[in-house]
Amino acid sequence: MKTISENACFGGTQGVYAHASDACSCEMTFGLFLPEEAKDGPVPVLWYLSGLTCTHENAMTKAGAQGWAAEHGIALVFPDTSPRGDDVADDEAYDLGKGAGFYVNATQDPWKQHFQMWDYISEELPRILTANFAIDEERQGITGHSMGGHGALTLAMTLPERFLSVSAFAPIAHPTQSDWGRKQLSAYLGDDESKWTAHDATLLMREKGFDGPILIDQGASDQFLDLLKPEALAEAIAARRQQATFRMQPGYDHSYFFVSTFMEDHVAFHAEALYAG
Amino acid sequence: MKTISENACFGGTQGVYAHASDACSCEMTFGLFLPEEAKDGPVPVLWYLSGLTCTHENAMTKAGAQGWAAEHGIALVFPDTSPRGDDVADDEAYDLGKGAGFYVNATQDPWKQHFQMWDYISEELPRILTANFAIDEERQGITGHSMGGHGALTLAMTLPERFLSVSAFAPIAHPTQSDWGRKQLSAYLGDDESKWTAHDATLLMREKGFDGPILIDQGASDQFLDLLKPEALAEAIAARRQQATFRMQPGYDHSYFFVSTFMEDHVAFHAEALYAG
Repeated sequence: MKTISENACFGGTQGVYAHASDACSCEMTFGLFLPEEAKDGPVPVLWYLSGLTCTHENAMTKAGAQGWAAEHGIALVFPDTSPRGDDVADDEAYDLGKGAGFYVNATQDPWKQHFQMWDYISEELPRILTANFAIDEERQGITGHSMGGHGALTLAMTLPERFLSVSAFAPIAHPTQSDWGRKQLSAYLGDDESKWTAHDATLLMREKGFDGPILIDQGASDQFLDLLKPEALAEAIAARRQQATFRMQPGYDHSYFFVSTFMEDHVAFHAEALYAG
Repeated sequence: MKTISENACFGGTQGVYAHASDACSCEMTFGLFLPEEAKDGPVPVLWYLSGLTCTHENAMTKAGAQGWAAEHGIALVFPDTSPRGDDVADDEAYDLGKGAGFYVNATQDPWKQHFQMWDYISEELPRILTANFAIDEERQGITGHSMGGHGALTLAMTLPERFLSVSAFAPIAHPTQSDWGRKQLSAYLGDDESKWTAHDATLLMREKGFDGPILIDQGASDQFLDLLKPEALAEAIAARRQQATFRMQPGYDHSYFFVSTFMEDHVAFHAEALYAG
């Protein structure tokens, strides 16, 4: 693992690190904010998964999360959204290939060699974090924006023993029924739609739900509402009687201005779960 | 004036607007955050001047100022740092020409046709703001980062009737004695150094000071300390007995991670002056 940069930030350190990834068979880069408290021992961690076209950097510089994480003594990890490198398959579309890993393990050519983002986020990167930094693996929460909200919700419901809390900003909520999903799941996982269901937050909510609190914010003026399908997930949450808060926020769109506006609430929400756990 | 974008943000609106500039003889773009209170009438405004290589956009997306401005009911204006366009003179260096206007009126070729940033910031843009938005011109504060800190301090000391408060993050504090200054002042204003003194915060502090409070934050691990010369300005402030708080912040560098860390304090500092005024 090599250090790309480290900047003092809200009393802690915002770092960027790169490492050879076994899961993705390429070099991967991630951002990590460690609060001051990490000098004294392991701290809780909140994962932030980013959306389409993003790298590890977007949320790190634009979401305004570090100040709130510092206030609660929580680390933040910002993974990349796909494998990277000249020999990694890509597509001309912004929503397939690099920057659009969708947090799945691809089984199809030309994607399967590198696009193993589920294993990377759920297995490899956690090992690297706990081996190298003062991160308490018993206290983890996860959040994300758009495609990253999809990733956060699907990881949390599939690994309930891992995450004490999950939240999302404008998640892709029902990808098996959306153009943000069908194209990518078909490309990465093949045409057998039964393989897709493990990566659809609405279907997972109907099937199993989540053993902890959920917070979801969705802008009511989001320009991508037809692709996100928040109504499907809201219905599934209510039908399951899932412990959750689902907020439609009038006037807000899909941008980081929306994400940063509600970041304080999300960090506080996770802090409550992580410190109670 | 045309609207480039408007996004809901912390209960208010983050807008980006463009207009034909008489001062700069080109189209200019600026960002403006209006808090919710602007719907009911004019609100105080805090100017944020950006540093080298920046446009109107950097601070707008990375400084984390809108949340604090919303809390205090204050507007934020983010001007560009230079004229723009294919017919605007430029230089290969990052610190001269586009992105490096230094907030002066150029008198020398090839700069003088467009590089009239002093007039743009002090006269033209204020007229546009008060004509089009609910901005209270009687309650203005100004801040900035690096080259923008230089601009904020020189504008405030030259126009004391305009600004009730001034602050800066890692300002270029003594440009007449720095490689961040001598090259640019020579290019824009000519070799007669007597013309440069109006654009040096340390010299202005020695000569006149500021009739109001000043807050300056400087990272003690800033990679550009030799160019910024904070010690010159600190000495001048103390020698004048100027009302001011000058904070050396251990561990912090020149990045937006530094700026965002102390943004809450700066907005609160200006709010106190703007609401008392």
